[in-house]
Amino acid sequence: MPEASPLRIGIAGTQFMGRAHSNAWLQAPRFFDLPRPIELRAACGRNRMAAEEFARRWGWQSVETDWRALVARDDIDVIDVCVPQALHAAVAIAAAEAGKHVLCEKPLALTQADAEAMLAAVHGAGVRHCVNHNYRRVPAVQLAKQLIDEGRIGRIYHWRATYQQDWIIDPEFPLTWHLQREHAGSGPHGDLNSHSVDLAHFLVGRIESVSCLTAGFIDERPLPGAGAATFSAGTSAQSAARGRVTVEDASLMHVRFASGAIGSFEATRFAAGRKNRNRFEIYGSEGSLAFDLERMNELEFYSRNDPEHVRGFRTILVTEACHPYAGRWWPPGHTIGYEHTFVHTVADFVTAIHTGVAIHPDFVDGLRVIAVLEAALESAASGRQTTVSSIQSPEGVST
Amino acid sequence: MPEASPLRIGIAGTQFMGRAHSNAWLQAPRFFDLPRPIELRAACGRNRMAAEEFARRWGWQSVETDWRALVARDDIDVIDVCVPQALHAAVAIAAAEAGKHVLCEKPLALTQADAEAMLAAVHGAGVRHCVNHNYRRVPAVQLAKQLIDEGRIGRIYHWRATYQQDWIIDPEFPLTWHLQREHAGSGPHGDLNSHSVDLAHFLVGRIESVSCLTAGFIDERPLPGAGAATFSAGTSAQSAARGRVTVEDASLMHVRFASGAIGSFEATRFAAGRKNRNRFEIYGSEGSLAFDLERMNELEFYSRNDPEHVRGFRTILVTEACHPYAGRWWPPGHTIGYEHTFVHTVADFVTAIHTGVAIHPDFVDGLRVIAVLEAALESAASGRQTTVSSIQSPEGVST
Amino acid sequence: MPEASPLRIGIAGTQFMGRAHSNAWLQAPRFFDLPRPIELRAACGRNRMAAEEFARRWGWQSVETDWRALVARDDIDVIDVCVPQALHAAVAIAAAEAGKHVLCEKPLALTQADAEAMLAAVHGAGVRHCVNHNYRRVPAVQLAKQLIDEGRIGRIYHWRATYQQDWIIDPEFPLTWHLQREHAGSGPHGDLNSHSVDLAHFLVGRIESVSCLTAGFIDERPLPGAGAATFSAGTSAQSAARGRVTVEDASLMHVRFASGAIGSFEATRFAAGRKNRNRFEIYGSEGSLAFDLERMNELEFYSRNDPEHVRGFRTILVTEACHPYAGRWWPPGHTIGYEHTFVHTVADFVTAIHTGVAIHPDFVDGLRVIAVLEAALESAASGRQTTVSSIQSPEGVST
Amino acid sequence: MPEASPLRIGIAGTQFMGRAHSNAWLQAPRFFDLPRPIELRAACGRNRMAAEEFARRWGWQSVETDWRALVARDDIDVIDVCVPQALHAAVAIAAAEAGKHVLCEKPLALTQADAEAMLAAVHGAGVRHCVNHNYRRVPAVQLAKQLIDEGRIGRIYHWRATYQQDWIIDPEFPLTWHLQREHAGSGPHGDLNSHSVDLAHFLVGRIESVSCLTAGFIDERPLPGAGAATFSAGTSAQSAARGRVTVEDASLMHVRFASGAIGSFEATRFAAGRKNRNRFEIYGSEGSLAFDLERMNELEFYSRNDPEHVRGFRTILVTEACHPYAGRWWPPGHTIGYEHTFVHTVADFVTAIHTGVAIHPDFVDGLRVIAVLEAALESAASGRQTTVSSIQSPEGVST
Repeated sequence: MPEASPLRIGIAGTQFMGRAHSNAWLQAPRFFDLPRPIELRAACGRNRMAAEEFARRWGWQSVETDWRALVARDDIDVIDVCVPQALHAAVAIAAAEAGKHVLCEKPLALTQADAEAMLAAVHGAGVRHCVNHNYRRVPAVQLAKQLIDEGRIGRIYHWRATYQQDWIIDPEFPLTWHLQREHAGSGPHGDLNSHSVDLAHFLVGRIESVSCLTAGFIDERPLPGAGAATFSAGTSAQSAARGRVTVEDASLMHVRFASGAIGSFEATRFAAGRKNRNRFEIYGSEGSLAFDLERMNELEFYSRNDPEHVRGFRTILVTEACHPYAGRWWPPGHTIGYEHTFVHTVADFVTAIHTGVAIHPDFVDGLRVIAVLEAALESAASGRQTTVSSIQSPEGVST
Repeated sequence: MPEASPLRIGIAGTQFMGRAHSNAWLQAPRFFDLPRPIELRAACGRNRMAAEEFARRWGWQSVETDWRALVARDDIDVIDVCVPQALHAAVAIAAAEAGKHVLCEKPLALTQADAEAMLAAVHGAGVRHCVNHNYRRVPAVQLAKQLIDEGRIGRIYHWRATYQQDWIIDPEFPLTWHLQREHAGSGPHGDLNSHSVDLAHFLVGRIESVSCLTAGFIDERPLPGAGAATFSAGTSAQSAARGRVTVEDASLMHVRFASGAIGSFEATRFAAGRKNRNRFEIYGSEGSLAFDLERMNELEFYSRNDPEHVRGFRTILVTEACHPYAGRWWPPGHTIGYEHTFVHTVADFVTAIHTGVAIHPDFVDGLRVIAVLEAALESAASGRQTTVSSIQSPEGVST
Repeated sequence: MPEASPLRIGIAGTQFMGRAHSNAWLQAPRFFDLPRPIELRAACGRNRMAAEEFARRWGWQSVETDWRALVARDDIDVIDVCVPQALHAAVAIAAAEAGKHVLCEKPLALTQADAEAMLAAVHGAGVRHCVNHNYRRVPAVQLAKQLIDEGRIGRIYHWRATYQQDWIIDPEFPLTWHLQREHAGSGPHGDLNSHSVDLAHFLVGRIESVSCLTAGFIDERPLPGAGAATFSAGTSAQSAARGRVTVEDASLMHVRFASGAIGSFEATRFAAGRKNRNRFEIYGSEGSLAFDLERMNELEFYSRNDPEHVRGFRTILVTEACHPYAGRWWPPGHTIGYEHTFVHTVADFVTAIHTGVAIHPDFVDGLRVIAVLEAALESAASGRQTTVSSIQSPEGVST
Repeated sequence: MPEASPLRIGIAGTQFMGRAHSNAWLQAPRFFDLPRPIELRAACGRNRMAAEEFARRWGWQSVETDWRALVARDDIDVIDVCVPQALHAAVAIAAAEAGKHVLCEKPLALTQADAEAMLAAVHGAGVRHCVNHNYRRVPAVQLAKQLIDEGRIGRIYHWRATYQQDWIIDPEFPLTWHLQREHAGSGPHGDLNSHSVDLAHFLVGRIESVSCLTAGFIDERPLPGAGAATFSAGTSAQSAARGRVTVEDASLMHVRFASGAIGSFEATRFAAGRKNRNRFEIYGSEGSLAFDLERMNELEFYSRNDPEHVRGFRTILVTEACHPYAGRWWPPGHTIGYEHTFVHTVADFVTAIHTGVAIHPDFVDGLRVIAVLEAALESAASGRQTTVSSIQSPEGVST
């Protein structure tokens, strides 16, 4: 291992994503041969006590309670943006302007305008940028890409994505920030379809137009901690305790790709029994692929080039040394899990920073996802098919 | 068994469907206790020699070569319409006017206008009518309906149907009648989505509006027997041998149901490795269902009413005596196949004729399917969401 | 179709197997091009009224109530032996001595001595003989054999068979004849393992030695119709109503094949949730196979000769025209069921009678199965590994 | 978090298991609330440079190159034994005698005598002991145990275990130490069946007797680095380069449990396409269970107490907060992998050391596994069923 200077990380956000990213920064140097050591310099959370407990557990050397202070520190090289989506733009732009490389959670921004500003900022500052659409880095997904690039799927005709969960299916699940438009932007359309659109871009290509239909199933929900709110004057206890859901509960999209392929997307939080079923299927002139995150170590592959009598969907257990990333972990047949995708992102980002090699998805890719999602919401409102605006890379390369 | 008079059948059509229906008429009285004996009185096909060979093999007592002669015979009680779809209306209307009960293959008609005329004819004649959307009569599908009616799925939020095949994926597959609009009306949209829409009506309910996107992947194909056509003057051999595909290769639909549920449909003949994958998934407030015709003896069911730690999709092997139809066949675990659905249709239709009990899908149901398909094609042309016209039953009951 | 003389069939037995065989005789000429027409001449059952109803339903032209009368008739060419296993030897030997070809249900006989006498009889009479181990004739099983013969599995190392049911798991299931040694010979060891051993012989080869362990889980069961027996004097109603189970409830076997492969077998009627799970797995130097009767249209195949990164078990949907038998039925993806295996047997047996081509499994094959089962029971009694006696074909060919 | 004194760990072994255990010691305090902090005090490997690189990567504070030095250190509380199996007894006994708690990799020892000596040592020293049969700590396996304890399976009739790999299926795979009896003791019988026997003890109970059959498929293999060995005098280059495999390639066992249940085990390294398929099935009077390590986040469960028409094997995705261990990791549907089982072991062992609560499997459990394996090899040699010696816990409790 080289005696390179450490790469010093500051993380903004200490919730679910803060935890997953912290783990990734710790695990990456153990399972990958990184070009530079990692230093977990500072973690930032609004509540000091919680931030300190977080820092203690995950090994962050110091704590900040204001993200502006974090990005201003001169002992930090990388800002890892794990705050709620509504804050992505502010933090990422400030970090770029302070000359930090930026790793940002997905989706990149609440709006296309925000995403464009973020891209302009990182481009203007000349820093490296990456948006963590982490499912690209599942070994089985990388293998899917490889098989497509090898020509084993041929010309792609169909893309189908479903991302299904059921965590708010109980009507008494409270009205958390995820269900309020001002905080979350949208519901599963942004949260889940953003993953699926990124995968579609990665595996199939550019989306030209989109039709979208959204639906709400539960209009009102109990306010969080509603028990304490029931005595508010002037309204009945019942109505006081409830609030309106202002994001969609489900989103369906149909798209046309620039290549002539067509695609369908479905994102919902009302699919009883589906916990994190991020599934896609790809059908091409030479073969087909299917992936399901709930069985993330597997990839299904059908080849029309097999002898006719032995054709069938095969289940590849993507744990062999010859498979992407897999050789870094355990022997064949020893599976990995959800958090490993974050380790892959971090390892690749460190390498990209060190070597200057391109990393995807970057903010251009992240912006392209937002552009599709925004066009879709326009379609949902109008009932008409909508054209997706074409995103130019700041380097002038349209990809 | 009663000494009832035989029910005398005449069949129009001797191809794939003629074969499947003939088998059904033969098998039904062996595995079901029908209220009346069956007599296979006459089979009708345009080619006399082929029709005679067909009649010999399947036990039809006589042969006709003109369907007008068939429907005119006074020794026939039921006309079984297995001719190409473009002829459904003519044959069924003539049969009804001749006082015959009519069993018609799906989809009911090429156009909504035709389907309406067919419904008017059978209603005016007072004969029984049935359209053979046979997949309703898979035991697992009937069980799905039973579980819904028992309240085990609760309020339905999502319907997803995919009907995927790959039999024309080779660009050199010839330009048969299935690929020409004037003969087939449409491609997989009518052929496959008609099944899925009927299942959606059966299991979820009325569809109010639809958005549709269609695509063509292969524009030209070799003419059947193109080898003989290569010497035609004035064009190159190559171009002379090819013709334009005039139906879509794939169709995607999004719908809103009257109940507030939303649904997606996909029909294609370009899904490499999917042979006859008629799959649906239903998600409701209490549970979920999934069915795949390629594993037609199974139904997947998830219940939110199970204890939390043992919830999961269960695979019900629908071969128990307590399951619909299954007890008529073999012991538990002994599976049935594709053709059995036709036997179930025939058995139920004979019973309906004898007892006067309602049978579904009838021509009203068949017309409702056509109305959705036609609205969808309108949407595909306009790029806009389209309202589905509401179909009134001639008895005045809107269902 | 040739104008060959009809092949005239007499069937002994009108229960489950009588029904399955009758259906096969009726369906075979419709789906296969048989060299001779079939005539269903006579059905034999002890109860005349039941036999007549059976004959009416299935189209048998006449009825006998004594199997001796059936085999004595000179207007019959083939005796189809569907009586309980304890009667197989008597009926089959008499049939052979009367010059009839014999199709016999499995297992061939209660004892090896009986099976040897049956083989001697058919050989002495020069008639054709076949034992209906019907699962050989599942298209997926024939495809498995084809892949082995093509060298795609290589040298076979492992055979694993499990045949699991659960129909007597309820301790209150009555003490039917299946649970009494004098009528059934044994429990699942004979009933289920006989199928598995035949498949092992077909796919892997000769078994040299066997170790067996059997177990009983429920010692006593209610007598059938026990309600009527409760007034017997001198014993309590409870004890009078119960009798001892005298066959095993489960049987495990380990074997060595002559080839050096090893194998395991498990047969049970106490596997909750397994209805008719006749499953085998084969592992060889080049690839592997797996089959499960509950998904009988599928064969799983793994090939070490695929490129390393795309190796995986593929699920072949065995419904293509290029697959054994499948082209006779329906288009690709349209599945078949349990009863179709009997149609295949009948079609092949008729062809074998007409052409003189060998058919397997014949009585030699049936006897070999019995020899393994009998050696296994000897092992179960002694707790020692036991050598299987080598069976010579009467033609002097040891296979 | 308590201000407890750190628990100081020394690890012996820096290969595959050293890596998996190091990761576990690092991850446990992050995902679990341990009662004491962990200090990675020293790592021991024979090659100093490799050991130092290992220590650097995994955060061990110091290095030893002789395990005797490691166990002699007075700044260490726990010895984690990850050396090859042939050394387990020596290291563990010395560690116990030095008053260290001992965590030992599986299988506990090469021989029953060794295992007994190890148990005597830890018992005599009064230290805590644990053998890392890590698959007990898969959440799905713990859930299986819970369902059994809740009575959902009822009286268990059948246990079936298969542990299949294929990593030496290529005859040119070299003759590593795993294939030499003096180093490895046995082949998959010890390596893989030890896991399965431990799971059977955990889930079903004590094994009374065993029949075993072993087989070798490839007699000779290239020596590792054989290219360098070809000049040895007196033998041909070819023969010099090869050596005899002295362990079995596959092992089959049948057992009777004390409870009356019966079981089968299969362990092999010649199952093409099975990479780490540690699968078991349990069948009881009330329900059934199935588990497959290649899909380790899932448990299949069938209940006879479901309504009859909805019975089926359900696939439980064992990632809910209500499931064992799962709530410590990620939200529902976010899966974990192989290494997590080691984290669970470490977390439970630390807690056991701190609280004095029992931990299993301990050395008594480990010895019981060895006793079954040894009785099985005796059976394989004699061809007879063999009784398993009953193991008394040193505390006088036979379990």
